Amino acid sequence: MHLYSFFNDYSEGAHPSIFAVLEQTNLDQYAGYGEDSLADEAKKLIQKHIQFPDAAIHFVTAGTQANFITLAAMLKPYESVVAVESAHINVHEAGAVEATGHKIHAVKGVNGKITIPEIQQVLDFNHDEHMAKPKVVFISHATELGTIYSRQELTELSAYCREKSLYLYLDGARLGSALCSSEADLTLADIAKLVDAFYIGGTKNGAFLGEAIVICNKELQENFRYILKQRGALLAKGRLLSAQFIALFQHDLYFQLARHANAMAGKMTKHIESLGFPFLTPSATNQIFPILPDTLIARLEKLYGFYVWSRIDTQHSAIRLVTSWATPEEMVDRFLEDLAKSSQDVSFSS
Amino acid sequence: MHLYSFFNDYSEGAHPSIFAVLEQTNLDQYAGYGEDSLADEAKKLIQKHIQFPDAAIHFVTAGTQANFITLAAMLKPYESVVAVESAHINVHEAGAVEATGHKIHAVKGVNGKITIPEIQQVLDFNHDEHMAKPKVVFISHATELGTIYSRQELTELSAYCREKSLYLYLDGARLGSALCSSEADLTLADIAKLVDAFYIGGTKNGAFLGEAIVICNKELQENFRYILKQRGALLAKGRLLSAQFIALFQHDLYFQLARHANAMAGKMTKHIESLGFPFLTPSATNQIFPILPDTLIARLEKLYGFYVWSRIDTQHSAIRLVTSWATPEEMVDRFLEDLAKSSQDVSFSS
Amino acid sequence: MHLYSFFNDYSEGAHPSIFAVLEQTNLDQYAGYGEDSLADEAKKLIQKHIQFPDAAIHFVTAGTQANFITLAAMLKPYESVVAVESAHINVHEAGAVEATGHKIHAVKGVNGKITIPEIQQVLDFNHDEHMAKPKVVFISHATELGTIYSRQELTELSAYCREKSLYLYLDGARLGSALCSSEADLTLADIAKLVDAFYIGGTKNGAFLGEAIVICNKELQENFRYILKQRGALLAKGRLLSAQFIALFQHDLYFQLARHANAMAGKMTKHIESLGFPFLTPSATNQIFPILPDTLIARLEKLYGFYVWSRIDTQHSAIRLVTSWATPEEMVDRFLEDLAKSSQDVSFSS
Amino acid sequence: MHLYSFFNDYSEGAHPSIFAVLEQTNLDQYAGYGEDSLADEAKKLIQKHIQFPDAAIHFVTAGTQANFITLAAMLKPYESVVAVESAHINVHEAGAVEATGHKIHAVKGVNGKITIPEIQQVLDFNHDEHMAKPKVVFISHATELGTIYSRQELTELSAYCREKSLYLYLDGARLGSALCSSEADLTLADIAKLVDAFYIGGTKNGAFLGEAIVICNKELQENFRYILKQRGALLAKGRLLSAQFIALFQHDLYFQLARHANAMAGKMTKHIESLGFPFLTPSATNQIFPILPDTLIARLEKLYGFYVWSRIDTQHSAIRLVTSWATPEEMVDRFLEDLAKSSQDVSFSS
Repeated sequence: MHLYSFFNDYSEGAHPSIFAVLEQTNLDQYAGYGEDSLADEAKKLIQKHIQFPDAAIHFVTAGTQANFITLAAMLKPYESVVAVESAHINVHEAGAVEATGHKIHAVKGVNGKITIPEIQQVLDFNHDEHMAKPKVVFISHATELGTIYSRQELTELSAYCREKSLYLYLDGARLGSALCSSEADLTLADIAKLVDAFYIGGTKNGAFLGEAIVICNKELQENFRYILKQRGALLAKGRLLSAQFIALFQHDLYFQLARHANAMAGKMTKHIESLGFPFLTPSATNQIFPILPDTLIARLEKLYGFYVWSRIDTQHSAIRLVTSWATPEEMVDRFLEDLAKSSQDVSFSS
Repeated sequence: MHLYSFFNDYSEGAHPSIFAVLEQTNLDQYAGYGEDSLADEAKKLIQKHIQFPDAAIHFVTAGTQANFITLAAMLKPYESVVAVESAHINVHEAGAVEATGHKIHAVKGVNGKITIPEIQQVLDFNHDEHMAKPKVVFISHATELGTIYSRQELTELSAYCREKSLYLYLDGARLGSALCSSEADLTLADIAKLVDAFYIGGTKNGAFLGEAIVICNKELQENFRYILKQRGALLAKGRLLSAQFIALFQHDLYFQLARHANAMAGKMTKHIESLGFPFLTPSATNQIFPILPDTLIARLEKLYGFYVWSRIDTQHSAIRLVTSWATPEEMVDRFLEDLAKSSQDVSFSS
Repeated sequence: MHLYSFFNDYSEGAHPSIFAVLEQTNLDQYAGYGEDSLADEAKKLIQKHIQFPDAAIHFVTAGTQANFITLAAMLKPYESVVAVESAHINVHEAGAVEATGHKIHAVKGVNGKITIPEIQQVLDFNHDEHMAKPKVVFISHATELGTIYSRQELTELSAYCREKSLYLYLDGARLGSALCSSEADLTLADIAKLVDAFYIGGTKNGAFLGEAIVICNKELQENFRYILKQRGALLAKGRLLSAQFIALFQHDLYFQLARHANAMAGKMTKHIESLGFPFLTPSATNQIFPILPDTLIARLEKLYGFYVWSRIDTQHSAIRLVTSWATPEEMVDRFLEDLAKSSQDVSFSS
Repeated sequence: MHLYSFFNDYSEGAHPSIFAVLEQTNLDQYAGYGEDSLADEAKKLIQKHIQFPDAAIHFVTAGTQANFITLAAMLKPYESVVAVESAHINVHEAGAVEATGHKIHAVKGVNGKITIPEIQQVLDFNHDEHMAKPKVVFISHATELGTIYSRQELTELSAYCREKSLYLYLDGARLGSALCSSEADLTLADIAKLVDAFYIGGTKNGAFLGEAIVICNKELQENFRYILKQRGALLAKGRLLSAQFIALFQHDLYFQLARHANAMAGKMTKHIESLGFPFLTPSATNQIFPILPDTLIARLEKLYGFYVWSRIDTQHSAIRLVTSWATPEEMVDRFLEDLAKSSQDVSFSS
C-alpha cells in the first residue's frame, strides 16, 4: 500500500458538497432519462457560466462516452477526425471512435497540442473519395500532456476550422484545471464561442461521475438525445448527473476544486525544478511530468503511486504525477520531502 | 404535480443503506476503471449469491448499455438475436443493438415471454447465408409486461438453446422483482446455471445506477473489458458501482427492496381485482396493467402519475402502475381509495 | 440435371448486345473507378430515359450493395427504415442494413406492397428518442412477390412521405419487368419524380452485373462516391458497368428484354389458370407463384428447376417460377405441356 | 488525349482469353451467388496452384472489398490491424476498415514493407483494454511502392505472428507482378503456407474484375459466405468471376500476363537508370517510381498519362509509371524515346 496515490485525479469519490445535494434530493421523485427538473436547473447554471444561452447541454457518465457520441453526431459515415497522436481518442479509448465507423488521422502535435499546418497537411493529402474525408478537429484542453491552449491559439484554430468547414471539438476531461491554470487566458465563455462542441469534465474534478456535453453549433443540436439513448448514455436516474452539476456550478465549486488541484501540482513543480530536475512538457495544470533518475523513481515507487510515463535515456524516465481536488497538502509536502531526501541519497551513492 | 408517481421504479434516488456505503468509502483512494478492491468484494458477494464462483462479473451504468455490450460480445458480424416484439432491445433502446451491427428477429411471444416453437420458426426460416444467422435468444425476467418465466420454462428454453448452439441471454433490469414474486420458483442460482449471460439490475431496485453483468459461459468471458471500454462503459470511478452492489448484496437488501415493491403492487392488484377490473397480463411483479374505463383513468391521472399503456376498446385502456423499493404504503392506500371512490362515481354517472 | 431452370432470372450470362459493347471497347484505355467517359455516356442515356437531367447516377455491382449503400447515405446513426416483412432488405440480405447500424421496422404489407396506414402506425409508435427514428420508406418494384405499384399508389405514397419528411426509396432489382408489365401504368419518368432515390436493376435483366443507383433528391447527392468507395462498390474497371448500361439504354434493349421475360411468364400464368390452379399473389411480372398439388410439384421437380415457395395446406404448396430475357419459349411450352400432362395423371390417380 | 496512359494497370478491359471463356459459357445456366460449378472448377485450379487443397476460396469484385471483408471476418469488435502508413487500407480505401469498426495502427515501414520491431512496438504500447487490441498484421505483396517481400522476410514475419497469436493477411492486388518479379523467391505455395489469408488479384492482372480470397487458416473459414453476403460481395451471377479465374489459372495465363507487365516496367527501369535518373524505391514489379526534373515531367505529361507521386526537392519529383498485361511494347519504346529526347533538351536548356 502506498502512502498516497498520485496515479490520477479520480482515486477518491465525490466532494462533500456534491454528496450533500444528492442527499437533499434523494427521496424526491423526478422524471427519468435526463428530463428531470434538476437537469433544467443545472443546464441553466452552465449556460450562464459559458455565457451561451442557446447551447444544448447533455450529461453523460464518462469522457470516452462523451467523445464517441458527440463525434458520431458530427460525422457522416465517410468522414473522419484529425487529432494528435497522444489524443485520448487515439490511444486510450480502445478504438471507440473507430467502432462507430470513423477514421482518426493522427498527427504529431507539439507538446500535446495540434497545429494548423498539420491539419492542412491532412486536408491536402486526403483530397478525394479514395480517402476518408476529414471533418472534425479534436483537441483536449488541458491536453493529455498537461499543456493548455492559449486564447490566441484557440482563436486561430477556430478561424481556420470555420474557413475549412471543419468542426472543432474540445475534450474537457480536465477543463477545470486548464481554465484555472496560472497560465490560462481562455475563459469558459471564450471556449463556447470558439468551438462547435465541447464537454466539461466532472469526474476528474470532484464529481462521482458526469461530463456535461455542450453543443454550441445549432446544426449539431437536433435529435442528440437519440444518439445518447442508442449509445447507452441516457441514465434512468439522470438526476444523479444533474444534481452533481448543480453542486459544481451553483457557486464556484468547479473552479475552487480545480484551483486546489493546480496549486498542489504547482507546489510540486516548483520544488522539483528547484532540485534541478527537468520536465517532459511545460505544464501548469494538475498533471506534471518530471524527468528523474530511474534509481530515484524506484525509491519513490515504494512509497507513492504514480505512472512511469516514458523512458528518456538509459538512466532517466519521465513520471506522471497527478493531483486533484482531494489531494491533501500534507501528502504533497511529504512526497517532496521524500523526493528531496532520496534525491540526495541517490546523488551521494552515484 | 401528482400526489405520487407510479410512472416507474426509478423516480427516487438511492436507498439510504447504499448511500451509507458510498459515504463510508468516499475519501479512500481506490484503483480506477473497475479494478478497485470494492469491485472484488462485490463480485465475490454476487458469485456467492448465484452459487457460481467462476462467473465473470462486470458493473455497468445502465440496462441498454448492459444489453448491447453483452450481445456485441456474443455475436459475430453476421449473427443475430431472437426476441419477442415487446422486448426492451426491440422497442426501447433506439436501435442500440442494430447500431452495433446486428439484426433482431422479433416474434410475437405470449404475455411477453418467448416460446420455443417461435424460435424454431426463426431458425427454419433463416437457414442460409442470404439471411442473418440467429445466435442469441434474448429474454427479460421479469418481462416488459411484468410476467416471469417458471423454472420449467427456463429449463426447457435453456436445453433447447444448448441443443441448437444458441446462446441464452437474460435481461434482468427487474430481476429482483421477478425473483421475489409470489409466483417465482426460479432462484438466482438456477438462472446462473441455465443462461449464458445475464445482468442483475440495480437501477430499478434501489441503486443510483448500476447493473451487474454476469457471464456464466466461459467462452464469452475473455477480453470483455475491452468491449466495456470501447463502448464507454468503464467508469473512472468504478467504485461508485461496486460500492452500491456491496450494499445490495452484503446482506439481504436486494431482495428486501424487491419484496417491498412486489408487496405494494400485490396490494394494488388484489384491490383492483376485488373491484372487478381485469388485467392485461397476469403479473405478480412490481409492474401491473389493470384495464380501466377511460373516464376513470382521466380522474386518476389528475392525482397520480402513470402511463396509459394500450387501448383495449373504445371505452377502456390498460394502464401501467409501477411500484418500487421507495413506494410508501400510504400512497398505495390513498391511490386505492381514490380508485374505489372514482370507480363508484363513474359507475353511478354512467 | 434439369431440362431448364426457372429458379431465377440470373442463371444465364449477359445478352449478346451487351457482350458486343464490352468487346468493342475492350482494348481502349479508360479512366478508373467510375470516372470513365463511358459512364458519362451511360448516365446521359439514363437521365434522358427518366427525364431527370439533374439526377445523380452511380453504377454498382449488386442489389444488396445498392440498397445498403443508398440507405446508409440517407440515414443518420439513429434513423431507421420501414419496409414490408417480405422486403429483400429484411429477409435476404444477411442483415446488411443492420450491419451499417440501422433498424428495419417490418410491417405486414399487402401482396408484398406497403400501405400508408402501416407506415403511420410505425411513426405513431416510434415517437421519441427511446425508439429508433423512422426516416426512409423502402419499397420494391416489382415486389418480392411479383406485384407492382400503380401510379396512384406510388403518387399517394410519395405525397405521404414528403408530408412526413420521410425519404422514399425504391429497389428496382426487377424494375424492367415492373415497367413492362401488362398492368403497369407507371413510367421511369414517373418514378424518378416520385421517389428520392431508386436503382435500375441490370443483373436480373440481361447484364452480367450492374445496378444503376439514381439519386433524384439533391440533398442526397453530395459525396456519394465516398460511401461507394468505403463500402467496396467502386470498381477499378468501372467501365465494365457503364458499357453494359450503354448497351441496355442506347436503344430499347432494357425494355425489350423485360417484355420477353414478362411474355414468357404471362404465357405460363394464362395456361396454369386455364388448368384451374390458383395463384398466391396476382402477378403480371416475370415471377409467378402458382399453387399446385404437392404430388404434381414432385413430378415437375424432376424435370425443371424452381423453388417451392410456401406451404398452403397439407396437400398444396405455392411454387415460384421465374422467367428472364433468356428463357426460350420452347422451354416454356415444354413446361406447360408437362404440367398439363402431369396434372391429368395426378387427377386421375387421386 | 494521351498517346498512352501509364496511370495504372486497369485502364484496359479483359484479356481476350478471359473474354473467350465468358463467351463459351454465356448461355449455359448456372447456379447463382457463387455456387456455380465454374466456381468449383476455378477453386480446384487455384488450390492446385497454391498446393493447399484445404484452402477456402471466395471470389469478390474488388480489392477494397476483399480487404475489409476478410479483416472483418478475422477481428472481434475491439481488435485492430497493424499496417504500414502507405498501406492501401490506411490511405486509399476511404476508411473502409474503420467503417467496419476496427482501428488501424499505422507504422512507418521501410520501402513500403513492415518490420517486426515496428509490430512489436505496437504490441508493447497497446497492452491493455484502454487500447484497441492488435490482432492482424496487414501486408501488401507487391507493396504500394512496388517492392516485394523476400522468402526470408515473409518466413520471419510469419513465425513472429504465429508466436504472438497475430493473424497475417496479405493483400495481393498485384500478386502476379510480385510473384513474377525478377527478384522474387516466394512462390504461391510459400505464401499459402505462411499467411492466414490472402487474395489473388485479378483486376490488375487481366480480368474485368475479380479477386480470389484464399483462407488458409481453418479457424477463419467458417461462415465466410455470410459476411460476403452481408457486405454486398455475393454476385447473383458469380459465374462472371469464376469463369475469369478459370481462364487465368487453367493454363499459365495469370503468370504470362504478369511477366509481360514486369518486362515492360523492367525495360523502362533499365533505360531510365541508364539516363542517370534515381528511383524512389527499388522496384522490380510493374510499378516504378523514377525521380525526374519537374521540367522534364511537364513535357512528358503532355504526351503520356501518369501520376506525379511525391515531391523530392524544389526541382524534382518522383512519378509513378505502371505497366500491365496490355501495355504495348511500342508504347514503352516511344515513351523511352520521348524521355531520352526531352531529357537531352532539358539538360541543354538548363
